Amino acid sequence: MALKTGKQYLESVADLKLEAHMLGRKSGDLGEHGLVQPSQKAVAFTFDAAHDPATRDLFCVESSLCKAEINRFTHLHQSAEDLVNKVKMQRYCGAGTACCFQRCVGLDAANAIYSTTFECDQKHGTDYHQRFKDYWSWIQQNDLVVDGAMTDPKGDRGKRPKDQVDPDLFLRVKERRPGGVVISGAKLHQTGMLNSHEILVMPTLTMRPGEEAWAVCCAVPTNAEGVRYIYGRQASDTRKLEADPLDVGNPFGGQEVMTVFEDVFVPDERVFLDGEVDFSGTLVERFASYHRQSYGGCKVGVGDALIGATALIAQMNGVAGASHIKDKIVEMIHLNETIFSCGIACSATGEATAAGNYLVNLLLANVCKLNVTRFPYELARLATDVAGGLLGTMPSAADLNDPVAGPYIKKYLAANPDFPVVDRMKVLRLIENLVAGAGAVGYLIESMHGAGPPTAQRIMIGRQADLEQKVARVKNMLGLV
Amino acid sequence: MALKTGKQYLESVADLKLEAHMLGRKSGDLGEHGLVQPSQKAVAFTFDAAHDPATRDLFCVESSLCKAEINRFTHLHQSAEDLVNKVKMQRYCGAGTACCFQRCVGLDAANAIYSTTFECDQKHGTDYHQRFKDYWSWIQQNDLVVDGAMTDPKGDRGKRPKDQVDPDLFLRVKERRPGGVVISGAKLHQTGMLNSHEILVMPTLTMRPGEEAWAVCCAVPTNAEGVRYIYGRQASDTRKLEADPLDVGNPFGGQEVMTVFEDVFVPDERVFLDGEVDFSGTLVERFASYHRQSYGGCKVGVGDALIGATALIAQMNGVAGASHIKDKIVEMIHLNETIFSCGIACSATGEATAAGNYLVNLLLANVCKLNVTRFPYELARLATDVAGGLLGTMPSAADLNDPVAGPYIKKYLAANPDFPVVDRMKVLRLIENLVAGAGAVGYLIESMHGAGPPTAQRIMIGRQADLEQKVARVKNMLGLV
Amino acid sequence: MALKTGKQYLESVADLKLEAHMLGRKSGDLGEHGLVQPSQKAVAFTFDAAHDPATRDLFCVESSLCKAEINRFTHLHQSAEDLVNKVKMQRYCGAGTACCFQRCVGLDAANAIYSTTFECDQKHGTDYHQRFKDYWSWIQQNDLVVDGAMTDPKGDRGKRPKDQVDPDLFLRVKERRPGGVVISGAKLHQTGMLNSHEILVMPTLTMRPGEEAWAVCCAVPTNAEGVRYIYGRQASDTRKLEADPLDVGNPFGGQEVMTVFEDVFVPDERVFLDGEVDFSGTLVERFASYHRQSYGGCKVGVGDALIGATALIAQMNGVAGASHIKDKIVEMIHLNETIFSCGIACSATGEATAAGNYLVNLLLANVCKLNVTRFPYELARLATDVAGGLLGTMPSAADLNDPVAGPYIKKYLAANPDFPVVDRMKVLRLIENLVAGAGAVGYLIESMHGAGPPTAQRIMIGRQADLEQKVARVKNMLGLV
Amino acid sequence: MALKTGKQYLESVADLKLEAHMLGRKSGDLGEHGLVQPSQKAVAFTFDAAHDPATRDLFCVESSLCKAEINRFTHLHQSAEDLVNKVKMQRYCGAGTACCFQRCVGLDAANAIYSTTFECDQKHGTDYHQRFKDYWSWIQQNDLVVDGAMTDPKGDRGKRPKDQVDPDLFLRVKERRPGGVVISGAKLHQTGMLNSHEILVMPTLTMRPGEEAWAVCCAVPTNAEGVRYIYGRQASDTRKLEADPLDVGNPFGGQEVMTVFEDVFVPDERVFLDGEVDFSGTLVERFASYHRQSYGGCKVGVGDALIGATALIAQMNGVAGASHIKDKIVEMIHLNETIFSCGIACSATGEATAAGNYLVNLLLANVCKLNVTRFPYELARLATDVAGGLLGTMPSAADLNDPVAGPYIKKYLAANPDFPVVDRMKVLRLIENLVAGAGAVGYLIESMHGAGPPTAQRIMIGRQADLEQKVARVKNMLGLV
Repeated sequence: MALKTGKQYLESVADLKLEAHMLGRKSGDLGEHGLVQPSQKAVAFTFDAAHDPATRDLFCVESSLCKAEINRFTHLHQSAEDLVNKVKMQRYCGAGTACCFQRCVGLDAANAIYSTTFECDQKHGTDYHQRFKDYWSWIQQNDLVVDGAMTDPKGDRGKRPKDQVDPDLFLRVKERRPGGVVISGAKLHQTGMLNSHEILVMPTLTMRPGEEAWAVCCAVPTNAEGVRYIYGRQASDTRKLEADPLDVGNPFGGQEVMTVFEDVFVPDERVFLDGEVDFSGTLVERFASYHRQSYGGCKVGVGDALIGATALIAQMNGVAGASHIKDKIVEMIHLNETIFSCGIACSATGEATAAGNYLVNLLLANVCKLNVTRFPYELARLATDVAGGLLGTMPSAADLNDPVAGPYIKKYLAANPDFPVVDRMKVLRLIENLVAGAGAVGYLIESMHGAGPPTAQRIMIGRQADLEQKVARVKNMLGLV
Repeated sequence: MALKTGKQYLESVADLKLEAHMLGRKSGDLGEHGLVQPSQKAVAFTFDAAHDPATRDLFCVESSLCKAEINRFTHLHQSAEDLVNKVKMQRYCGAGTACCFQRCVGLDAANAIYSTTFECDQKHGTDYHQRFKDYWSWIQQNDLVVDGAMTDPKGDRGKRPKDQVDPDLFLRVKERRPGGVVISGAKLHQTGMLNSHEILVMPTLTMRPGEEAWAVCCAVPTNAEGVRYIYGRQASDTRKLEADPLDVGNPFGGQEVMTVFEDVFVPDERVFLDGEVDFSGTLVERFASYHRQSYGGCKVGVGDALIGATALIAQMNGVAGASHIKDKIVEMIHLNETIFSCGIACSATGEATAAGNYLVNLLLANVCKLNVTRFPYELARLATDVAGGLLGTMPSAADLNDPVAGPYIKKYLAANPDFPVVDRMKVLRLIENLVAGAGAVGYLIESMHGAGPPTAQRIMIGRQADLEQKVARVKNMLGLV
Repeated sequence: MALKTGKQYLESVADLKLEAHMLGRKSGDLGEHGLVQPSQKAVAFTFDAAHDPATRDLFCVESSLCKAEINRFTHLHQSAEDLVNKVKMQRYCGAGTACCFQRCVGLDAANAIYSTTFECDQKHGTDYHQRFKDYWSWIQQNDLVVDGAMTDPKGDRGKRPKDQVDPDLFLRVKERRPGGVVISGAKLHQTGMLNSHEILVMPTLTMRPGEEAWAVCCAVPTNAEGVRYIYGRQASDTRKLEADPLDVGNPFGGQEVMTVFEDVFVPDERVFLDGEVDFSGTLVERFASYHRQSYGGCKVGVGDALIGATALIAQMNGVAGASHIKDKIVEMIHLNETIFSCGIACSATGEATAAGNYLVNLLLANVCKLNVTRFPYELARLATDVAGGLLGTMPSAADLNDPVAGPYIKKYLAANPDFPVVDRMKVLRLIENLVAGAGAVGYLIESMHGAGPPTAQRIMIGRQADLEQKVARVKNMLGLV
Repeated sequence: MALKTGKQYLESVADLKLEAHMLGRKSGDLGEHGLVQPSQKAVAFTFDAAHDPATRDLFCVESSLCKAEINRFTHLHQSAEDLVNKVKMQRYCGAGTACCFQRCVGLDAANAIYSTTFECDQKHGTDYHQRFKDYWSWIQQNDLVVDGAMTDPKGDRGKRPKDQVDPDLFLRVKERRPGGVVISGAKLHQTGMLNSHEILVMPTLTMRPGEEAWAVCCAVPTNAEGVRYIYGRQASDTRKLEADPLDVGNPFGGQEVMTVFEDVFVPDERVFLDGEVDFSGTLVERFASYHRQSYGGCKVGVGDALIGATALIAQMNGVAGASHIKDKIVEMIHLNETIFSCGIACSATGEATAAGNYLVNLLLANVCKLNVTRFPYELARLATDVAGGLLGTMPSAADLNDPVAGPYIKKYLAANPDFPVVDRMKVLRLIENLVAGAGAVGYLIESMHGAGPPTAQRIMIGRQADLEQKVARVKNMLGLV
C-alpha cells in the first residue's frame, strides 16, 4: 500500500470516530474540534514530509519486514545510520511544527518490543516475536499511527503494584477469556493517542515475581470497546477556540489525554508479554532509552523554531546588531546543538540487538535526555530576554481588530519600520506559546518528564557508566593494589 | 484619615469608573470583571495587612510628611531600616498572593521623585519638591494606590525620541496651556494601573539637550480625560472567566495594560519635571534602582509560595522523603534566599539623599535584580521536576465535575491517601499557574523585564563597581607603578 | 595596652618560638622561613590596618568587656551593625592580601563560645561564661591572634567518636588531673595556627550522651607542651623558596597545618565546655554560622583582587575594550557582589543572643557560604578566560633573568606597549596563583570546605527555612484544610 | 618500518639532542630531566598502546598514502568512522595518562594541511599537496611525533601583523634563499614540541592581501638550527624534581614551551603554503576544528581519570554510599559524557573533503570545544567537593617519611580501614594535581585556551549555524512574507 499523505491520514483517523471528555463535554468529531486540529495537523506533517521531494529520502525507507517502502516513523532500525537518520527526521519535524508531532512513541515502543520479544522467546519458548512481526508489518503497510502507552497512575508511590489499595493503579490483566485477556487500568500523559490508530500498552516499571498480572504488553486499537479518553488541559488551550488565530501563536500543537482501559479485551495475537516479569525491565529500559534519544531530535527542532523566532523578533525590535543580543542567540544555538550532539552520539554508537534491529547507546541516550531537562529552560529564558516585555503584556488580537483600540496598538507597537506590527505580534505570540503557553507544555514540562523524569536518567547514567573500570584504571596508574 | 481596609480600597477604586478595551470589548464595571477581580484582590491584600494584628507593625509607619500613621506602601523611607522593612513587607505580600500586588511601583516612583526634585530645585531654582510633597502628603492621607509609568513604546530602537517618525513614541509635552501642560504618548507594560487611583508619569531614559519636551514627570488621575487602557493578554487568562475556579490555580493574579495618553491636560501643581533634561537620568536611575530592590522582596515572596506548593505536592505525591526531592527543595530555598539577601543588602547599605529620604545601594540593587532574571527560572524548573508530568496533562475541573469522567479522574489521580484528589489538583494548578500560566507572566517574564531587562542591570553594575579602585589595589600589591 | 602594629605582632609571634615539621625538616625560626613569611605578612596586615588613618575607624572598636579600644578582630559583636562592619573589614583585608589573613576563625570562635557558655551556665550552673570573659578580656587587651580549632580527623566516617578504633580520632579529654584536664587528639586544616598566640579548641560535631569526653572546649597557647605542627603542602608552595619572587604571584599567602595535641594539659580556667553534650551542637552551629558569614567578606575581597587583576591583564593584553571582555568582568563583579550581599544580609538581620552579643541570621549565613562554594569557581574560570593561555605556559622568572633567554621573552611577550613585559608577567602570576597555584588553596579549595562543606550548609538551610510555614500559607491561599 | 614501541620512541627523541632554557639553566639531556620525563612518558603511552593486544585494533590502521600499517596518530582520516575512532583513541589515552599526551596537534595539522593544499593547488596551480603527501608518508613510515605550531605572540591585539612594531610578533618569511625560505618569529603555548621530531608551522589567523609574508605553512625538524626553546612553568612543577614522587600526584604530565624561530631555513620541499593568503583562513579554520574535536576525546579521558579518582577517594573516605556523593559523581559522569557526545557527533557527521580525507562537522566541533571550556571546571569543582579539605592541607611525602612526623600522619589520616593511608594520600595528590596543580594546566587552563579561546568558538558557531534558515522556517510557519 502506498505511503499515506497528510490528508489521507486525517481521513483515516476521522474514520475511527474517537470521542473524548473535553472541558466538561463529550467531543463530537475530533478532527473538526478547535482544540484537536492543531495537533492532528502536526501528525499530518510527518506524512506529508514523506512525499515532499526535499525530504522524502530522509522519511522513506525500505521495511525490514515486508520489503515495501515505508515511512521511517514505522521503521525497525537496521543500522546505526538508521538511528542517526531517525534523529535528523525528528529534528526536521520539530523545527517545522514547533511542537510534539506525536509519532515517535509508537516507533520507540515497536523497536523496544521487537528485540525484547525475541529474547523472551529465546528464554521462555513463547512466540511473541512472530506475533509482533505480523502485527508491525501490518502497521507498516498501512502507514498507521501508533501510540506507546507506558505511564501508569502509580497511586501511592511507596507501594508496589500489588500492594496498592486499587489494583488498577497499575494497568493489569484482570481476567483471562478464551482467545485473549481482559486488561484494566489507565495510562496517563498520552500525548498522541487521540490522533493514533493503535496503542502499544507496556508496563511502567520492572515487575517482580508475584506481579505477573502487571507484566503485560499488548496492542489495542484506539477505538476498542472500553477505552475512554479524558482530555488534559494545557496553558492557554482555549485560545485555540477563539475567532482570530493570532493569539494562539503556533498553528500546530500537541495534546494530552488520560486514557482509561475499562475491561478491554485483547486477543492473543496482540499480546506480546504476559507475565514474564523478567523481561518487563528490559522492555522499560529499552523503550525509555529509545525515547530519550528521540528528545535529542524533536526538542532540538523545537529549539530551532524558538531560535529562529528569537532572531526574527530581534530584527523586528531593531536590536539584531547589538552584541549582547547576538551573544544570547549564539548561546541558544550552542545549547541546542549540544542536545543534538547527544542525540547523534547515542545513535552513532548504537549496536545491533540479538533480534537484529539497532539499539541506542543506553548511557549516551540517558545523557541526552538529562540535558533536555535543562537546556530548553535556558533557551526559553534567553528567548524571553531577547523578545522583551511585550511577551507578557501584549493586547489581544480581538483588540487589534477593534476599530477604536486597533489603531492605538498599531501606532504604539511599531518598532523596526521594515516589519508590519501584526507580524511582530505573530512572532511574539509564537515565542509566548513556547515559553509560557500551550507550547511550553511540550517544550518545557514534557522535556522534563517525557520519557521519564531526570532522576530516572541519573539512575541509568550511574548504572551504565562503568565506574568500576574508571576506578581500576586510576589504581593502575597510581600503582595501588 | 484612617488607613483603608481592602474593602474600602475596592470601593474607592470602583468609584473611579475606569474602563478598558479587553479582548475586543469595552469592559463594564472592572471590579465585577472576572479578569480583573484577582488582581484587585491582590492589591486589597496590601490594605488588609495594615489592619491584621500579625502584620500591622510592619505595614504601618508614621509619615515623614504629615505625621499621620500611613501604609508603608506610601512611605518615604527615613532610614536603612525602612528600606529593609520595605523588602520584608514585599516578601510577605508576594508569599500571600503569589503574584504581583502592584503597589510598589508608585512607592518607588515617589521616593525617586522626592529626592530628584529636591536636587533639581537646588540647581535650577524650580519648586517641584514642594509641589511633590503636597501631592504625596495627600496620597498618604488618603491611602491611595499610585502607579508609576515609565516604559515608553520606543519605536525604532536605533533612534532618539526626537528622531522617531512619530514623536509620541516617547511620551512628551505636546502643548502648553495656561496653568498646565498637555501630554501625549503611551506607557507600556503597566501592571497595576487599572487598579490605581493615580499615575506618576516619568521619562524612560536619560534625555539630552534638545529633548526637553520628553523630559517630563507629572501626576495624572487614572480617570483623567484622554487616558485610555488596552488590556494585555496573559497565558491562560480566560480560565479566570470559566465556571469553576480550580483551573485558574491562584485566586490572586496580576494584570497588564497598555495606557494611551491622548492630549491629557496636567495642571502645573502636578508637574514635577518639565524640560530639565539633566535630571531625567537621575530620576530613571533612582526609580529603576528602587524597583530593582523591590524585586528582592516581592519575587522572593512568590518564590516562597512556589516552594511551599512544591513541598506540598511532594507530600501529596508521596515522595517528600526521597533524598533527591529534598535536595531540590533545598536548592529552591537557597536560590530564593540568595535573592532575598541581595534585597536586604542593598537596603541595609542604603544612604540618605540630600532631600533626606533613603536611597538603596545602587550597585547591590542592580545585582539583586540581575539575580531575579535568573533564579526564578531555575526555581520554576525545579518545581516542574518535583511536581511531575501532570502539570501539563491534568484534566479540567469541568471534567472532574462531569458525572461520567469525574469518577475516573478521582480513581486514577489518587496518590498519597492522606490527601483528597481535588486538593492535589488545586496545588498542581497553582504550580502550573506559576511555571506556565498567568502567574508565569509575573514570576518569569516580569522577573526578566520588569524594572529593566538584564542588560540594563549589567550596564549599571559595570558603572557602579569602581573597577579602577580594584585595579589600583592590585597594582599596589604587586608594586607596579 | 595599645593596639599592636604589624611589626609588633611579628615580634610577638616570633617570641613564641614555634616549630613545625615542614617538607621533611624541623623548621627553625618560622618568621624567617620563606614558606611562612607571606602568611605572617597577611596576618600583620590586620594589625597595620588598625593604625592606617584610612581604615582605623573600621578596624578599631571599643571593647564590651574592658572598655579599651581594641582591634575589631577580637570584638564581641554588640549590634547588627557590628556584624556588618566585620564583613566590610574582612572584605578589605581580602582585597589587600588576596589570601586568607587567618584572624577570623578565632573571632568567630570567641563569639560562639561567649553566647554558648552563657546558656550552658544558665542550664547547668557551670561558670564557663565568666571564665571565658576573663580569658577573652586578656586577649583583647593584648591584641593577640587566636586560632579556632574545630575539625577532627574523624577516621571512619560511619562511626561515632566513641566507636572509632582509635579514640583520638576525635579530640577528647583523656585524663583528669588536679586543676585541669589532659586532652589528646588532632585538628586538621588549621589555617592560621602557626601565626597565632592562642588556640580555641572546640568539638567538631554534636555529641550525644555517652560522648562526654569528646564534648570539650578550651584554650591552649600555641606553644604549649605537647602541641606539634605538621605543615600542609599547597600547590606551587616551594616557589616561595626560589630566588626571584616574581613566580610566586602574590607577596601574601596562607598556610595550613595539621596540629597534634599529645596529652596537653589545660588548666580549669581555660576550659569552657567539659562534657555538657547538649551544648556541643549549639557551639558547632554558631561557630560554623559565624564563619560562613566571614566567607561573605574575605572571599569577596579576594574576588576583588582577582577582578582587579583580570581587568588589568585585559588592559595589558590590549583587549580591555572588547565587548565580551567587558561582559565577563561584569559577570565576575555580579557574582562577587552576590556573595557580598549574602554576607551583609546575614549580618544586618542578625539578632542578640541571651548573652548579649549578636549572632548572624543562621539561614542566610548558610546561604552565603553555599554561594561561596560555587561562585569563586566561576570567577576563576572567567579570569582564566580573560587572562589567556600564558597562564599555563609562561616562562620562569629565572629565564627572564637569563642573559640569553631573557631578551626573547621580552621580545615575544610584549603586548600593549603602555605596559612593561615584566609587569604583565607579574599580573599573570598573581592570577595563576589564584586559579591554579597556592592561592587556589584559599580561594577555591578552602571556599569549598572551610567552615564546612556544601552538604553541611544544605542541611542547615533545610532546617532553618521554615518550610512548614510556606506549606501552611499555600494551604491557606488555596483554602485547603 | 615497524610501529615504534614507547621505548623506541624515547630513544629516537633522545637522539635529537634537544635542549631548552629551563628555570634559568640550559637543560642537559631532556629525557633524563625530572621535569620532562613525565611528559615523554605520556607520549610513549601512545606508542605502547599500538602494541597492546587490548587496544591495537583501535590504534593501528592502514595508511592511505603508503599502504603500511601505521599508528592512528599519523592517519589521514578516510571515513567518519575514522573520525569517531580518533576520538575514542584520544579518550583512552586521556584516561590512561590523565594529562595531555601531545600527539593530536600534529595529527590535526596534517589533516588540515592535506585538504587545504589540495584546494590551493587546484586554484593556484601550486604543488603543495604532493610535497605534503611525500612528507607525511615519511612521517607515517617512521612513526614520528609531529607538533603543530600555530599560536603567534600577536603583540598589540589592535594591530594587524604588518602593522606591529616588531614584524616577528607574527611568524613570517623573512628572507628567500635559493631552494628555500628563512622564517623568523615565535610560537607560544607549544605543548608537545620538546617531545617531537618535527614541527608543522601554520599561520595563526586569516591573512589578507599585503600580508603574504605571514601566510606561511611549512615543516621544520625540532632540532633545526635556529630553533630555541624556553620552558613554561606550571603550577607545582618542581615537585617533579623532589625525592619522593608521591606529592606529584600523576606519574604522567604535560609540558609547555615557547619556541623561537631565529632565521630558520626551510627547504622548498617542506613548504606547504607561501603567500597564498586566501587559504590561510581555510587552514586555520580546519585545523582549529579538528583540534576542537580532539578535546572531545582527550579531555573526556582526563575526566574519566578524575571521576575514577573521585569515586575511589569517596570509598577511601568511607562516604561512597552517601546519596549526595553518588549524585555528584553521576553529575560528573553526565557532564563528561556530554562532552564525549559532542566529540562523537562532530565526527559521525563529518564529511569528505575534495582531497578525500574526512573533515569534522565544523558547527558541532566548535560546540564540542565550547563545552570543554565549561564542564571540566564543574568536574573539578565537584571533585574538590567530594575529596574533602585535605586536598589543600595534606602534609608532604617528606614528612610522611619522617620518623617523628610520619606516625602522626598515619594515625590521623586513617579513614576507611580497608585502605592504607599512603594510598589515600596518593589519590588525593592525583586529584590535587588535576584541580590545582600541574595537571590543572592541562585540564583547566588548556581546556579554556587550547584550540582557541571560547570567543573563537562562539564566532564559528554563529557563522556555521545557518540562522537564516531557521528564521525562514519560522516565517513560513507563521505565513509571513
